[in-house]
This record gives sequence, structure tokens and C-alpha cells, in this order.
Amino acid sequence: MDDLEELFVLNEGRPLPRDLLAKGERLRWAKGEHVPTRGGVYYVETGLIIVRRILLEGQSKALFVARDGHFFHDVAYAQQKQGLTEVSSLCTSVGYYFSPDMTDELLAGCAEFRRVFLYSLACKARSMGTDLVFFACLTGARRLLFIMENIADRMGGKRSDGTREVHVSQNELAEYLGLHRGSVNRLLKELESEGLIRREQGRIVLSGRGGGTGEA
Amino acid sequence: MDDLEELFVLNEGRPLPRDLLAKGERLRWAKGEHVPTRGGVYYVETGLIIVRRILLEGQSKALFVARDGHFFHDVAYAQQKQGLTEVSSLCTSVGYYFSPDMTDELLAGCAEFRRVFLYSLACKARSMGTDLVFFACLTGARRLLFIMENIADRMGGKRSDGTREVHVSQNELAEYLGLHRGSVNRLLKELESEGLIRREQGRIVLSGRGGGTGEA
Repeated sequence: MDDLEELFVLNEGRPLPRDLLAKGERLRWAKGEHVPTRGGVYYVETGLIIVRRILLEGQSKALFVARDGHFFHDVAYAQQKQGLTEVSSLCTSVGYYFSPDMTDELLAGCAEFRRVFLYSLACKARSMGTDLVFFACLTGARRLLFIMENIADRMGGKRSDGTREVHVSQNELAEYLGLHRGSVNRLLKELESEGLIRREQGRIVLSGRGGGTGEA
Repeated sequence: MDDLEELFVLNEGRPLPRDLLAKGERLRWAKGEHVPTRGGVYYVETGLIIVRRILLEGQSKALFVARDGHFFHDVAYAQQKQGLTEVSSLCTSVGYYFSPDMTDELLAGCAEFRRVFLYSLACKARSMGTDLVFFACLTGARRLLFIMENIADRMGGKRSDGTREVHVSQNELAEYLGLHRGSVNRLLKELESEGLIRREQGRIVLSGRGGGTGEA
């Protein structure tokens, strides 16, 4: 369970008004695409972005998934440390890049930007409210289910029988999350044995009986 | 080990210049004193402040220890949620209280305040750098040792034979950290069996052979 034990999915963040988005550079990321890390911060308008910590041994560890209304690289910006994370997109996502100078300027001059920025940073902090406490109680398998439910919601994977499906292979999941294939296989097996998912060629079908795994 | 598993001690934060401290209300907390939680944020100039999360069952769980140069209640300020934490002082500490209006004003108008504030908030975030990764590898007992070493440093508990001592009883430790007495007893026993501490009446003597538990 160790690979996924620290991963959490941020709840929905706060929207930035259009005139503030226009101060950034609009970016579109494809499913599985790696996001180059530059100084400054990124804001997710729609989609799911996974942030992994680079470990000493050249491996990486899944940290959290940023959703709509959240920043990422805000921690690196605040600590003035770059290059400690690997970032990639779990599905088609749209975001905005704010350079360090623009971030400085907006934090100083715009209360609305500051409010959304501080909220997002605070959500990543340990002392966050009940959402993370709830999430911390989930096992690795349930976290994976939660992530897949989020992906399904973003990718419109609703089927006529009420189930949802994620068009992602086991290998892709492992690659996106930076996990070993064996770990993903084990977690998926666990979910399958509980009747929560069904694995098919190149996709995973969610039975919709997960319940209690959040507001996604 | 569950009680202490999430607790971490923040590394030294960043100093706020004197003219900015003067914008806040100076406070002095005695060892073991509870800090009233008001809206706005608190800055630790010297000392150790423990922040605990209030759990649903009326219990609390130790979250982190804020040290010199760190804010606390910054997460509550950013999320505009109060009353989720319990805060108390692990030793004689000096801090400053900034009201919500003053915090807003300083964040907007003062780059230095913003820098220290964002740094402190980022340090509490999961994606922080190597310090927390290091700390995350410590067992509950080693975390307790780390905390006691910090207390000893703050309280000048150095003895002529090179050992340090903490003038705190087992019951006080349990109370300050919000742990069960049984948990503290078990952790201390573990440290004692490793020859890292010695328990005496009303105090704990640190052998100084802990090594590797940080820069304290």
C-alpha cells in the first residue's frame, strides 16, 4: 500500500475570474502529457493534474492530484525551490501559467488572486479541514478508485447502464501515477474482488457502487 | 504508533523584521499554556507551539510543531475556517498576533511579510522539500526524541556532562501533545531501551547520542 499512502486528491478549488486568467498564458495538456516545470505557478481551469515528488533514488512518489480551481507549483514558488516535482496530466486539461513576476504582481495587487492562491496552498497543508481527514482514512485501493471516478467525470465516461468507464490501461495508470505496475495490479484486483470495478481491454469499468468516496 | 504518525516539527522559519513585528500584538506564552484561537494569524518569534487537529470524537491529534519564524493559523486564515485546531505552547514562547485586517493589509502591501507568510504556509504543505521527507521516515519514538531535543534547546537544559535535560513529566508530555499517557510511556520506554534517554523524577535526560535526528 506504500506507493499510494500519501496521495490525496484536492477538492474543488476556487475559480479565478476571466480577467485574471487573461494575465496568464493559456495551456492545454493531453492525457498523460508531462508538464514542463518553469519558475512561477500554474492554475488548473479544468482537468486533473498529478504532482509527484522526485525521490533521491531517481524514482518518484505520487503526492496529490490538483483539480479545477487549484494552483500547482505554488509550494515551489513560495519556497523558491524548483525541480523537486514531476507533473503530468491525468486527462485532457486546461491551465494557465503565471510567470514569477506576474505572480508577484498579482499577489500584491489583486485580493481575488491572493485569496484563490492562499486557499490552494492551504489545501495542500497538513492541517487542512475535514476533506483530507476523510481522505486519509481511505486505503490505497479506495484512493485509486476515487482518482478513477474523477477521471471518468472529466472524460465523460458515463455509460447507458449507469456505470462509468475510464479509458486507461493498467500500464497507463501506473505510468501516470508513477507507481509500479505490480502495485496498480494489486490495487485493481482488490477493487475487483469487492465488485467495485471490472477490468476490460484498455479500460476500467466503475460499477458506481463505490459510494462514500467523496463528492466527485 | 498511530498517535504520533502524522506529527512533524517545522524547520526554522524566516525572521520578520522588527518594524513588521511591531504591527502585531506581542504575546508571551508559558510552558503548557493554551493559546486562544482568534481570527487572524500568529507568528512565533521564539519557542515551540504545538498545533493539534480537533477530531470528531472530541479528541485531538498532534499535527505539527511550529518553531521560530513560522506562522500558525495561517491555514485557517487562508481557508477562512476557524475552530478546527487546538494550540498550546511546549515551552516559554514569544509570538505576535496579527488581526485579519492587519494580515490582509500586510499581505497586500509588504513583500517581506508575504514572503515569510507564504514560506511558512508552503512548509506545511505535503509537497515540501527534503525536510519533511526526512522527518516522515522517523518512527513515533524518534519524533518524540526530536521534539524533546527541541524543547531542551529552547529551555537551555544543557548539563555539565554534555547531556541535555527536559524538565517535563510524562503526564505533561502527554497533555501537551494530546496523546494518551500509555502512548507516551511506550515511546519513552522504546527510547530508554535504546539508551537514548533516561527518565528521572519530573524530567527526562537526553543522552545526546540520538544523532541524525536533525539540525536542532
